[in-house]
Amino acid sequence: MAGKAPVLTPQSEDFPRWYQDVLNKAELADNGPVRGTMVIRPYAYALWERMVAEVDARIKGAGAENAYFPLFIPESYLQREAEHVEGFSPELAIVTVGGGKELEEPVVVRPTSETVIGEFMAKWVQSYRDLPLLLNQWANVVRWELRPRVFLRTSEFLWQEGHTAHASESDARSYAESILRNVYREFMVDVLAIPVLIGAKIAEERFAGATNTLTCEAMMGDGKALQMGTSHELGQNFATAFDMTFSDEHGEQQVCWTTSWGVSTRMMGGLIMAHGDDAGLRLPPRLAATQVVVIVVRDDDGAVTPAAAGLVADLAAAGVRARLDDRVSTGFGRRATEWELKGVPLRVEVGPRDLADGIVVVARRDDGTKEPRSITDVVPSVPALLAEVQDAMLAAATDARDRRTFDVGSVDAALEAAGEGFARLPWRLVDAAAIARLGASAVTVRCLQSPDGDLPGSTPEDELVAICARAY
Amino acid sequence: MAGKAPVLTPQSEDFPRWYQDVLNKAELADNGPVRGTMVIRPYAYALWERMVAEVDARIKGAGAENAYFPLFIPESYLQREAEHVEGFSPELAIVTVGGGKELEEPVVVRPTSETVIGEFMAKWVQSYRDLPLLLNQWANVVRWELRPRVFLRTSEFLWQEGHTAHASESDARSYAESILRNVYREFMVDVLAIPVLIGAKIAEERFAGATNTLTCEAMMGDGKALQMGTSHELGQNFATAFDMTFSDEHGEQQVCWTTSWGVSTRMMGGLIMAHGDDAGLRLPPRLAATQVVVIVVRDDDGAVTPAAAGLVADLAAAGVRARLDDRVSTGFGRRATEWELKGVPLRVEVGPRDLADGIVVVARRDDGTKEPRSITDVVPSVPALLAEVQDAMLAAATDARDRRTFDVGSVDAALEAAGEGFARLPWRLVDAAAIARLGASAVTVRCLQSPDGDLPGSTPEDELVAICARAY
Repeated sequence: MAGKAPVLTPQSEDFPRWYQDVLNKAELADNGPVRGTMVIRPYAYALWERMVAEVDARIKGAGAENAYFPLFIPESYLQREAEHVEGFSPELAIVTVGGGKELEEPVVVRPTSETVIGEFMAKWVQSYRDLPLLLNQWANVVRWELRPRVFLRTSEFLWQEGHTAHASESDARSYAESILRNVYREFMVDVLAIPVLIGAKIAEERFAGATNTLTCEAMMGDGKALQMGTSHELGQNFATAFDMTFSDEHGEQQVCWTTSWGVSTRMMGGLIMAHGDDAGLRLPPRLAATQVVVIVVRDDDGAVTPAAAGLVADLAAAGVRARLDDRVSTGFGRRATEWELKGVPLRVEVGPRDLADGIVVVARRDDGTKEPRSITDVVPSVPALLAEVQDAMLAAATDARDRRTFDVGSVDAALEAAGEGFARLPWRLVDAAAIARLGASAVTVRCLQSPDGDLPGSTPEDELVAICARAY
Repeated sequence: MAGKAPVLTPQSEDFPRWYQDVLNKAELADNGPVRGTMVIRPYAYALWERMVAEVDARIKGAGAENAYFPLFIPESYLQREAEHVEGFSPELAIVTVGGGKELEEPVVVRPTSETVIGEFMAKWVQSYRDLPLLLNQWANVVRWELRPRVFLRTSEFLWQEGHTAHASESDARSYAESILRNVYREFMVDVLAIPVLIGAKIAEERFAGATNTLTCEAMMGDGKALQMGTSHELGQNFATAFDMTFSDEHGEQQVCWTTSWGVSTRMMGGLIMAHGDDAGLRLPPRLAATQVVVIVVRDDDGAVTPAAAGLVADLAAAGVRARLDDRVSTGFGRRATEWELKGVPLRVEVGPRDLADGIVVVARRDDGTKEPRSITDVVPSVPALLAEVQDAMLAAATDARDRRTFDVGSVDAALEAAGEGFARLPWRLVDAAAIARLGASAVTVRCLQSPDGDLPGSTPEDELVAICARAY
């Protein structure tokens, strides 16, 4: 294949352009007509549906129930929590006309739902017996974006937002932590094969209205960080603003402690940029909507297609998400390139000559290896091979992240390291002036960790490690 | 239980108030703070999730793929199709401020997505090989409502909207019909146990921009009709407006033929009003999120709860959606009333005395019957019993509908019959004056059918039957 023109801009040449090329060529997404909005095309939406199913099952496992709250929020609700309104005001989309008339009170298109959910939780919570109240919703939200980029920063995005109310600070804290560890990190590591770091945001980077923001941070293929999901302790800020009180075991009125937490279509951007290469997407098998494509290479005598279709049926019966590519009027090379671009983990290539010998070729997308297998062995071997690919992708992403993560002892060294990847800098070296210096080079503190890479917990502040990086 | 105060306003006394009572007491939904919006509470949302899963599987079975298009549509898009903009203008919510600034072009919050999807289909369709293009999205839409009622008419609702493009009118027509019959009606009859009628809307009642609107119409408990879902042929109206053309087998440019079709959270209202009775909801087992509740009646010696929990585990292992109610500190009667209110199809009541005899009581929500069963027989018998309840509910709803459906020979008789239920009136008797007379009593032509109750198809117009009723 010498001299073949690349389908995509090489990553090393221009990573953002490579990203844009993948979005277009793999038919993932387009820009919408209103600035900052996006169209999610079927191939990408099927991946999002699988993310939703996996995250939703874990959220339900954590005891939360799904509900749905309105898109429109009275402007006055946002104003009840001072930091919240200050944080979100510049990003709001506001409806001023409804049903042909100017509205008396303009309504905000939800940028997030703490306020409206707070209003209803206050009605539903009366007694300590009603707590904890664990809710989640899957919804679209709107935050006006000046520099939009599909999946990463869009004016409208899809997400889940969990909202919980608790009787004590410690219960709220442990729930927020458990969502971060057991729902978000577990999903990102086990399903997306992305070895995210966990930690706490510094005060300046917290969610507007939170007392503590926990985060999952991933490294992209260019060494930059992407915030993949956050879980917030909201203290009693929203509970006080919305009068969310309960009567405790002794009949005393107490104010609730609340949390909120979310992951969004931004994870699609993380998936693309964490695993993609110059040939396109690389999908971890547990996420892939199509895990195996069985390709009819050529079919001169009509015997190949039925054999390939038989493999697809047998794979499906074995619980594998398989599909057939029998478009023999399109050249094999072009179709192989297309499946590479779309990141399907395994290709089973069935051609007339091999078939006569009882052989098919199995190609792995993750490492590009190809090997012939007996047609009778291929179906039974696929589930283990998919598991092997899943593990290999996580191992490769972990290795890539570790190679680009540097322990540093000064802000200067952190700045240099952040040109390559992540810098691990002692937090005691980071004062306001350091944050400003880092910021001047677009480097931020992504999170604070304990020395062994866990959430800060009760780690003394001068032992914390600041993960510094450029970020999307 | 003589003298027990009713939990709900009796249906015969005030049906709309009964409906409102069910929404509140069964914790289904609340009004949102912005007029016409709603909060869908967890118990109702779990039912919606099951509707989504069932409808989504059938839509995928019909070959359509899910995608996602933006919430915000430029105002100019709606104006491209004259009837469409005229139909929707009075109901629009309009965003005029974004990111702190007055927008140069106001954007509309989607009332439906024909226009924005049309714009993208026009890009994606080039050749006859790209057709049919079969897309669907699950989304929220906004239509400003002056007389909102939760689930039935809300300013924001959740729905799916399918949008397809075809190479010929006949292909578009047969797809629109197949969605109505094989997706919507099949789901409503088989899962919701609601025996919907199918037919075509009269011209005045068509979707704005459609050349033909097909509908599923259900009868509610008070004899009124509810439109449960529609499927539209859009002719070439939107394809022309959005320049959706393709090159055919002979290399000639042709204009596409399109369809759109949707069902919404309105089905929740239909479910409540088609099956509910004075004790509350009655849920068909195929839809119910909880099919069986196993209730610990009392547990004086601590032996009952483990036995009940064992039944729940065994039921779950048998594929039944079962849950335990072991809240023995709340009286049994109150809990039984609550599960009736929530419409759980079967209650298995486990009490200490019966348990000593190896007996539990199985109560059916649909017909109120109770019978003792041996504890060893109960789990194996439940799947068949759930199927029996499902069939009985459909039979009862069909019977109720048929008893309130009248063949009539004049507009006067139709008006009288519509006080009770549905009137089947020869379409040839319905002229503009008749429509006006019916309308003066809030009676409308719900749909036109062939004499045997099918879609009109090629039935001569003077043989068609007009189904006339009052409607929600």
